[in-house]
Amino acid sequence: MPVGTQGTVKAVTPVHLRDIGAQIILGNTYHLNLRPGSELVREMGGLHKFMGWDGPILTDSGGFQVFSLSKLREISDDGVAFQSHLDGAKLFLGPKEVMGIQSNLGSDIAMVLDECPPWPVDRDACAEACRRSLAWAGRCKAIAEESGFLSSGHHVFAIAQGSTYDDLRREAAEGLSALGFSGYAVGGVSVGEPEPEMLKQVAATTPYLPADKPRYTMGLGTPPQILKMVALGVDMFDCVLPTRVARNGLAFTPEGPINLRNEKFRSDPRPIVEGLDNYTCRNFSRAYLRHLIASGEMLGGTLVTIHNLHFFLDLMAQVRAHIEAGDFGSWHLSWIRRYESR
Amino acid sequence: MPVGTQGTVKAVTPVHLRDIGAQIILGNTYHLNLRPGSELVREMGGLHKFMGWDGPILTDSGGFQVFSLSKLREISDDGVAFQSHLDGAKLFLGPKEVMGIQSNLGSDIAMVLDECPPWPVDRDACAEACRRSLAWAGRCKAIAEESGFLSSGHHVFAIAQGSTYDDLRREAAEGLSALGFSGYAVGGVSVGEPEPEMLKQVAATTPYLPADKPRYTMGLGTPPQILKMVALGVDMFDCVLPTRVARNGLAFTPEGPINLRNEKFRSDPRPIVEGLDNYTCRNFSRAYLRHLIASGEMLGGTLVTIHNLHFFLDLMAQVRAHIEAGDFGSWHLSWIRRYESR
Repeated sequence: MPVGTQGTVKAVTPVHLRDIGAQIILGNTYHLNLRPGSELVREMGGLHKFMGWDGPILTDSGGFQVFSLSKLREISDDGVAFQSHLDGAKLFLGPKEVMGIQSNLGSDIAMVLDECPPWPVDRDACAEACRRSLAWAGRCKAIAEESGFLSSGHHVFAIAQGSTYDDLRREAAEGLSALGFSGYAVGGVSVGEPEPEMLKQVAATTPYLPADKPRYTMGLGTPPQILKMVALGVDMFDCVLPTRVARNGLAFTPEGPINLRNEKFRSDPRPIVEGLDNYTCRNFSRAYLRHLIASGEMLGGTLVTIHNLHFFLDLMAQVRAHIEAGDFGSWHLSWIRRYESR
Repeated sequence: MPVGTQGTVKAVTPVHLRDIGAQIILGNTYHLNLRPGSELVREMGGLHKFMGWDGPILTDSGGFQVFSLSKLREISDDGVAFQSHLDGAKLFLGPKEVMGIQSNLGSDIAMVLDECPPWPVDRDACAEACRRSLAWAGRCKAIAEESGFLSSGHHVFAIAQGSTYDDLRREAAEGLSALGFSGYAVGGVSVGEPEPEMLKQVAATTPYLPADKPRYTMGLGTPPQILKMVALGVDMFDCVLPTRVARNGLAFTPEGPINLRNEKFRSDPRPIVEGLDNYTCRNFSRAYLRHLIASGEMLGGTLVTIHNLHFFLDLMAQVRAHIEAGDFGSWHLSWIRRYESR
């Protein structure tokens, strides 16, 4: 899922998003609720209409940003009180608030409120976060049922925490599965832990989530990380990586990322990736993209963003094809080898 | 003509340029020759291929930027020696150089080298600039003939100088007309003089240019200025105004420009201009555009640029329709009255 933090996938129009085959995008509840405000988005007809995107939208609950962006926060069983990182305003997010905000936005898939423990975290604090997250998940689901959110074609995904404690991971996954959601995220990964630790946590969670519902790791990852997580049973990903680095001239290729600022691309007439069917690769040379980026032209960021997003979407299309063909295991290992060979 | 100074109409992909009906764009020889260099553009297949634009391109000669951007310059009958404003490199532009560069770029319409006198300028200096410009124009045409540029479907436009001296304006226009070009620009306007003075200079030039060839004022102007110059017989315009101000949130409407940063647009569900058929007005509210601009999102600049360029192109389409209908005179006066009424 391309990430549209503030109601826009940075630097690209929905025309180009459609063209690269984006099926669903992510919006950030925390950011949108602070600015322009979810009430305003509702008044304007919901997030789809507001941002001119007619495909599905998944929104996070905003909880993760409260934990990562807000300095002053206070957690209780009711929710979390915090100050806006923009203007210091005092705010509160509980299950009722996050479901109300996501309903205002008109999310197709709303995420439950959860407490994401830091890494590392001691066992007691982690168990406490899991207990609270399970209770909040149940409350979010009940609110979505009562409000008619679920019966009107919208979905709610739960988030399983548990940090590095395998038994807590399993308990969280099984507890949430028993409640019954449309999909499940593996939470609390990519919060500073080394990659092997992250994969271990994913592996400790996915076996205990229903096989017939989407599994999602939030805020991840590099192409090799994505492939490794697919191998562990994950279906969905979102990450700012392809869009963020694009604006600095970093472009993804099957042989690893290349920095288009590099002098060696000065007169390189090739597209970023030969034969890749996206607007950027069909029409523009590395030399042109380098010129745009070296000249500080916005279009450089736009064109590399289009390519990078398509590179990730195309990678996932390959993943699906190889899963269906039954050779995902060997294919993904050789894909990673090629990607990391330089 | 949308302006693509450095090989890109700032902030928009050619997809959107096509969609708003852009028929021709302008490239800046001075900038492109410094970076990435016209030889490189030629190696990459010319400016059209380089920037992914398959419509016509007009390029200026680079002379104007030498006069406006370079501090150290020395003019002789051979051309002008100057230092790059980027790195101080010593460079020289004469008729041969500007035609060679524009040929490298693959311009559909190349402009001759001219000397643009400052405003105000004394009569002797102006006459000298006119004499030199006429000689350079003749030399540029001869080079374009000898090199096969003209016989291969490309065009050369001349530039008539003369500052505020009506007789020098007429002399320049008639002298260039006698040489025979595909089109003619009124040069030396919009260099600091007040608007009435500018219009007076245009009025002193156009009657002496062939009626069956395009007439062009370079680097102009606001919508009312454009209409007033059309009334004086001008056909073509280029200006950074619609693109430059767009990135600051200024959007054009038939009732004058509006600043989308303004709080009053916070919950305004209307498009910038109701019923205007461009991607931005079809899909996005003022409230959304305000949100993007207030949040520093690149897409804000992109979407307002699309609208502003279309607003100018649509204005010119209206101009053509009213000229054909025979009511341009009264129509353009009432258009200006409405635009300036607020």
